[in-house]
Amino acid sequence: MSRKIDTGVFLTEKSPKIISFASIVGSKEGQGPLGGCFDEVIKDNHFGENTWEKSESKFQLEAVKKAIKKGNFIKENFDAVFSGDLINQCIGSTFGLRELEIPFLGIYGACSTMAEGLLLSSIILESGSAERTIAVTSSHFSTAERQFRFPLSYGGQRTPTAQWTCTASGAVTLSSIDNGNIEIVGGCIGKIADMGITDANNMGGAMAPAAAETIIRYLKATNTSPVDYDYIITGDLGLVGSSLLIDFVMKQGIDISSVHKDCGSMMFDNAKQDTHCGGSGCGCSASILCGYFLPRLEEGKINNILFAATGALMSPTACQQGESIPAISHLVHLRKIK
Amino acid sequence: MSRKIDTGVFLTEKSPKIISFASIVGSKEGQGPLGGCFDEVIKDNHFGENTWEKSESKFQLEAVKKAIKKGNFIKENFDAVFSGDLINQCIGSTFGLRELEIPFLGIYGACSTMAEGLLLSSIILESGSAERTIAVTSSHFSTAERQFRFPLSYGGQRTPTAQWTCTASGAVTLSSIDNGNIEIVGGCIGKIADMGITDANNMGGAMAPAAAETIIRYLKATNTSPVDYDYIITGDLGLVGSSLLIDFVMKQGIDISSVHKDCGSMMFDNAKQDTHCGGSGCGCSASILCGYFLPRLEEGKINNILFAATGALMSPTACQQGESIPAISHLVHLRKIK
Repeated sequence: MSRKIDTGVFLTEKSPKIISFASIVGSKEGQGPLGGCFDEVIKDNHFGENTWEKSESKFQLEAVKKAIKKGNFIKENFDAVFSGDLINQCIGSTFGLRELEIPFLGIYGACSTMAEGLLLSSIILESGSAERTIAVTSSHFSTAERQFRFPLSYGGQRTPTAQWTCTASGAVTLSSIDNGNIEIVGGCIGKIADMGITDANNMGGAMAPAAAETIIRYLKATNTSPVDYDYIITGDLGLVGSSLLIDFVMKQGIDISSVHKDCGSMMFDNAKQDTHCGGSGCGCSASILCGYFLPRLEEGKINNILFAATGALMSPTACQQGESIPAISHLVHLRKIK
Repeated sequence: MSRKIDTGVFLTEKSPKIISFASIVGSKEGQGPLGGCFDEVIKDNHFGENTWEKSESKFQLEAVKKAIKKGNFIKENFDAVFSGDLINQCIGSTFGLRELEIPFLGIYGACSTMAEGLLLSSIILESGSAERTIAVTSSHFSTAERQFRFPLSYGGQRTPTAQWTCTASGAVTLSSIDNGNIEIVGGCIGKIADMGITDANNMGGAMAPAAAETIIRYLKATNTSPVDYDYIITGDLGLVGSSLLIDFVMKQGIDISSVHKDCGSMMFDNAKQDTHCGGSGCGCSASILCGYFLPRLEEGKINNILFAATGALMSPTACQQGESIPAISHLVHLRKIK
């Protein structure tokens, strides 16, 4: 059983545990400053498949298989997998995971998907309806560029606020019946925020208000402040969005600047790798959570973090119709068990 | 707290209640045999908007507003809304519901979305993380045709197994703290089934195996048989898919033919309205659940139903790449409180 403490904010009581996790990234991500953190770096961005969509599916499937194996589980141990991605109709997930035959709950939170999957996993485990779940997501530079921007071979110029969609996947197994040393303490379900930004190359700007609202709502509901956490992590705000987030939160009298980390800003050496404002995509925060933050929690190097992945809920059709970009940020609170 | 009784199958213990529901449909749906059941029939399929996508968003928003009003609630009473639709990146839902500022959990189950939303609503209510939720979905003939098939003005010929995407939305409010007279007894999370069908005009055929697997898993786990239910309802298998479902289930020695109802087969007078194998789309089963079945449950004309909406998890890109069509069916068990 969980305890609701504010609208969309809850604390767990049985404390669902994270049991295992895995991350797989593409070659460019492997060459970045975190390259050594991931379980696997795939040099061939086609991953041996003949289309990019099939490649993304394989990233996701392999991440799930690896997380299952690292937890000493078999696929039959799981009651549900929460998954989604950026490709139309989420085929990265559905085609990727169909062979596993694990009960499948499709979610769509754009780049906030990893946090949404962890949130819903902790809720279903707390409810007693399931005992073990998986949360996974993926993104792929080439599926995203074609779908959201231009065909790769067109060679379109990128704007200064553009971010680079990561080719990456991260998967986490969770349980209410096994021992683990990371627990989910609570969570905050995001609200859709729309500040009227219409530039599809400035996702960080569109998403920063959603992240600010979610983080502030959780801090206030739990009566905690930034110093209580080792890190407050956002998904893929990038350099512009991160600086906006810190400003927005500061306007409410809260200073997160010393504990804020943004996965999008961490993935690449942006100057050297020509990635402008940083990484993006569902797989960005998922792979950095699984490759960088969860291992540090497990080792006790850090003890208490908020993970607030962020998603831009736009589509090319909506942008062409002159619509602004709504965004969302879901949050989970993770703690090392002493 | 719920009780897991098999992989992906659970029974509720606090019995989340359905408090109110609303349905809004387009003109063609209003002219069908169920036309008189819906809360509202909108004659203008643009719904006063200048694009079909904005029209679909408005169908969804109005259905939610109506359900909130019928339950004597205000939007601030809700901890979460579960929503998704067929349009790329689910913009029918995100753009439709952004103004409500209710914590938003995006889901993607194609035409199984209504069942997935009810399933996750009952889980979050059982967990204690939330006290009131909304489950909603929509579809629109014109957004779906352009995206999945042909531009409307192209005038493409429809195949005999084709179905007609309904312009419709259905919304349900649920609660763990209010009195209602319909309860959610249990649920079954669908598994992805793929029998290798590649014909995007035969969705019923692609989805029937998923519905069969889910229904059989729930019946076996609960040790019940078709005679225990007034109806076993599927989403939008249509005429071909429904007949396949009955055959598939019969092969396991279970005869559901006398209690089976399919929303896709019920929506239109298929011969007169030229809708071939019937209706489809997320809004089809959602609007018929809210316009036809839930009122009958509330009035006590029926007492015990299984609602197993079905979704085809394909995309045009996947079909063009020669992929088969994976499908899923989620199930919720609804009962009139005596």
